Amino acid sequence: MNTLPLYRQLANHYLDAIRSGTLKTGERLPSIRLMMEKHAVSLSTAVQVCRELEDYGVLEARPRSGNYIRQPDTPTRPVALIQPPPLDTGVYVGIHEHVSTVLKASQQATIKVNLASAYCAPQLYPLKVLQDNMIKALRQDQHLFDTTGSTCGNSALRNVLARRMLTAKTHLTADRIVITHGATEAINLALRAVTQPGDTVAVESPTFYGLLQILESLNLRVLEVAASAHAGIELPALEHLLQGPERIKALIVIPNLHNPLGSIMPDTHKARLVKLCAEHDTVLIEDDTYGDLVDTEQPLSTLKHWDRTDNVIYCASLNKTLAPGLRLGWISAGKWHDRVEMLKHTQTRGCEKLSQLAVSAFMGTPSYERYLRRLRKTLTQQRQHMSAAILRYFPEGTRVTNPRGGTLLWVELPVQHSSMALFQEALNVGIQISPGDIFSNAKRFKNFVRIGCGTPYSPRIDEALQTLGRLLKNQG
Amino acid sequence: MNTLPLYRQLANHYLDAIRSGTLKTGERLPSIRLMMEKHAVSLSTAVQVCRELEDYGVLEARPRSGNYIRQPDTPTRPVALIQPPPLDTGVYVGIHEHVSTVLKASQQATIKVNLASAYCAPQLYPLKVLQDNMIKALRQDQHLFDTTGSTCGNSALRNVLARRMLTAKTHLTADRIVITHGATEAINLALRAVTQPGDTVAVESPTFYGLLQILESLNLRVLEVAASAHAGIELPALEHLLQGPERIKALIVIPNLHNPLGSIMPDTHKARLVKLCAEHDTVLIEDDTYGDLVDTEQPLSTLKHWDRTDNVIYCASLNKTLAPGLRLGWISAGKWHDRVEMLKHTQTRGCEKLSQLAVSAFMGTPSYERYLRRLRKTLTQQRQHMSAAILRYFPEGTRVTNPRGGTLLWVELPVQHSSMALFQEALNVGIQISPGDIFSNAKRFKNFVRIGCGTPYSPRIDEALQTLGRLLKNQG
Repeated sequence: MNTLPLYRQLANHYLDAIRSGTLKTGERLPSIRLMMEKHAVSLSTAVQVCRELEDYGVLEARPRSGNYIRQPDTPTRPVALIQPPPLDTGVYVGIHEHVSTVLKASQQATIKVNLASAYCAPQLYPLKVLQDNMIKALRQDQHLFDTTGSTCGNSALRNVLARRMLTAKTHLTADRIVITHGATEAINLALRAVTQPGDTVAVESPTFYGLLQILESLNLRVLEVAASAHAGIELPALEHLLQGPERIKALIVIPNLHNPLGSIMPDTHKARLVKLCAEHDTVLIEDDTYGDLVDTEQPLSTLKHWDRTDNVIYCASLNKTLAPGLRLGWISAGKWHDRVEMLKHTQTRGCEKLSQLAVSAFMGTPSYERYLRRLRKTLTQQRQHMSAAILRYFPEGTRVTNPRGGTLLWVELPVQHSSMALFQEALNVGIQISPGDIFSNAKRFKNFVRIGCGTPYSPRIDEALQTLGRLLKNQG
Repeated sequence: MNTLPLYRQLANHYLDAIRSGTLKTGERLPSIRLMMEKHAVSLSTAVQVCRELEDYGVLEARPRSGNYIRQPDTPTRPVALIQPPPLDTGVYVGIHEHVSTVLKASQQATIKVNLASAYCAPQLYPLKVLQDNMIKALRQDQHLFDTTGSTCGNSALRNVLARRMLTAKTHLTADRIVITHGATEAINLALRAVTQPGDTVAVESPTFYGLLQILESLNLRVLEVAASAHAGIELPALEHLLQGPERIKALIVIPNLHNPLGSIMPDTHKARLVKLCAEHDTVLIEDDTYGDLVDTEQPLSTLKHWDRTDNVIYCASLNKTLAPGLRLGWISAGKWHDRVEMLKHTQTRGCEKLSQLAVSAFMGTPSYERYLRRLRKTLTQQRQHMSAAILRYFPEGTRVTNPRGGTLLWVELPVQHSSMALFQEALNVGIQISPGDIFSNAKRFKNFVRIGCGTPYSPRIDEALQTLGRLLKNQG
């Protein structure tokens, strides 16, 4: 029985048609009037179908002309359009050996060009300011290491973070924030607070392999839900799953500048996702580590913004935006705040004060916004260079995402290519990439590669991409 | 059926006699010859009985005279001799609410004199050296926050720690050490590596309440094993438990300067404990956070030193010896190293580099040993002052431990007194103490108090102890 609302059934119907090529770019979508007639639906339903397709970025409204199919935000060639996977029945893996093997191989190799990192190049980060702030704090206060810090973290930093969130239309009170050792510990605490070992947790597919590792270390069952580069997690697929027999305790989503997809969920999707999870009593864990790297000045909304029932746990990190060597993240756990605070206390106690002081001193000034603006512009250029080079050097049929921010490109190779083989061959010549395989327990992305664009474009990188292209062409 | 070796059965027999007052201080123990005759045992067994009693600190051999009962190491009045408790059948508590309530009450009160802390006073720590080292590191190296640190920690610090362990006759290789956020994270990782929720873990009774909180946060069942201020965990009681029906997955022990008992396990006990755990396939987790604060120059041996089967997980912290505000500990997990490394990676990633650099620069120099020597002398004096004042001001019948190092005294009040009532009354007048209740899930220490001696003795502290004495006398 299909329990989706009519307008979503119809939207999915057209999405399938677009994906399969039945409706091609530039073609006109049936008019509202025709839809009402053909599908026997109301005006409001037909309008909702069009909005839905616009949210997915596949529809363009031309004034006085109609709705046309478009390939969203891709200047040169089609974006990687990932087919929704078969719904997994839950993949439980004791230790994510595959990821570990890949990461270990990279550590042992001599790397000349690293295209696997999600970080920016060191010279793009405000490292000097941060180090100077630390020296200043160490000079001014002889009592920095006198006492153990508060379990929840420095109040100065928590205040700065709460104030910044207001611009993302998200109201968090500082005393409900806990500073953590990166987003890793934040997500760890969120999962420990709301699940038991053996519980099932859903994630996007693909998703950041670090999340898969955390889930496995906590003995949680993982269900993968299809996600697309246009709009993130596919809500119909999720809804289907939530209505299924398996109780899903929590869902982890990267709504803004998804790793590796680069997707940004449309606001309508965010609102609907939050509602859906609340209805099914599934805790929604939001990883907003990359949101600040969006191209535009206007901040992206968070899932927490749409949360009316305190069912969203907000997690984020500062080390992608400030410094790779900082271990600072944070969590705002809604109604689970007390439990998260208790778990933080018994897991690592409060974080050391010094980095928190240095960071809050910087984030509290206008220079932080100026720095972010510069960084965003730089990253936009770097992604454009990389994207163009990949399309130039890689085999015919390669497709690249065109995210609206961040450091990551998700590259779909023609289906006969193996990204694991490319990973090994590249490592042999000192180039590091992230093979698609590690972004899913179900190994669904064998012909995908994640390419980091954090480093300013240079002949060295150009040559590395050329080498990758050659290796691929040699694969046949 | 009593399955203890004969010499231990006999030793327990005499220990009971001493505890119950049947054999009094200064009295002579039956001679070896008499023992052989009366108990029908061999010469070797009788000698072993005497050694056992010596290890417990209750026997003194006088040349050409015989073995005499003594009260170990107590200059003024008897040490708190804790009766072995009835063996618990496993106390499972979801959240250690009692500890949380006590700690929260302390946080909310205005504290004028803190006698609850296990730390030294700030002025006793080398805080200036550490902060100067940090400033130096920040000036010298512009790349401290360029990259994420190694999961296992800085190699410089791991090397210094491994070298220092050699003096405690413990050989650890630096690459099997993982730097953690304090001993809290070390023990957390150890438990996550070797247990599943619902498993049973044994601890000493009393033990540091922080351990009880960790165990509860991991949903582990806790079995408490009697421990004494003379020799730590009671091995006969443990052996009995290990032979019982309940599978004990792990045992956490603080062998050196136990918190709160101050006990140091005799080497023979350490050796036997390690063997016992190996025989019963119970992982032995050692918390050696306080060992470096021993009065004597000669380092104490670790349980790891006696480990022949890699069954001991060594955990320690640097924040009791160096600075309360540092969050640095470490773990050497023997055959579970790989699993601990994986869990550290998914829990918090590697620790930030700066504190590790500052600490290893200091610990690698002779000034560190000089500093420790000074600290030890200071602590010895402070404990003596505090102990004398407690015996002066507290009610008749109060007994105080006389540990050979560290910052802690464990005070046994006459049985009609309530340490929780004292805690509340003291808090009302701005004095913070640790009530005995929180050192056991079974609430076995209602008339015990832990007093911290980390702060140089002063009229202020004298007055606080006098006030505590008055409050107790008012209790009746």
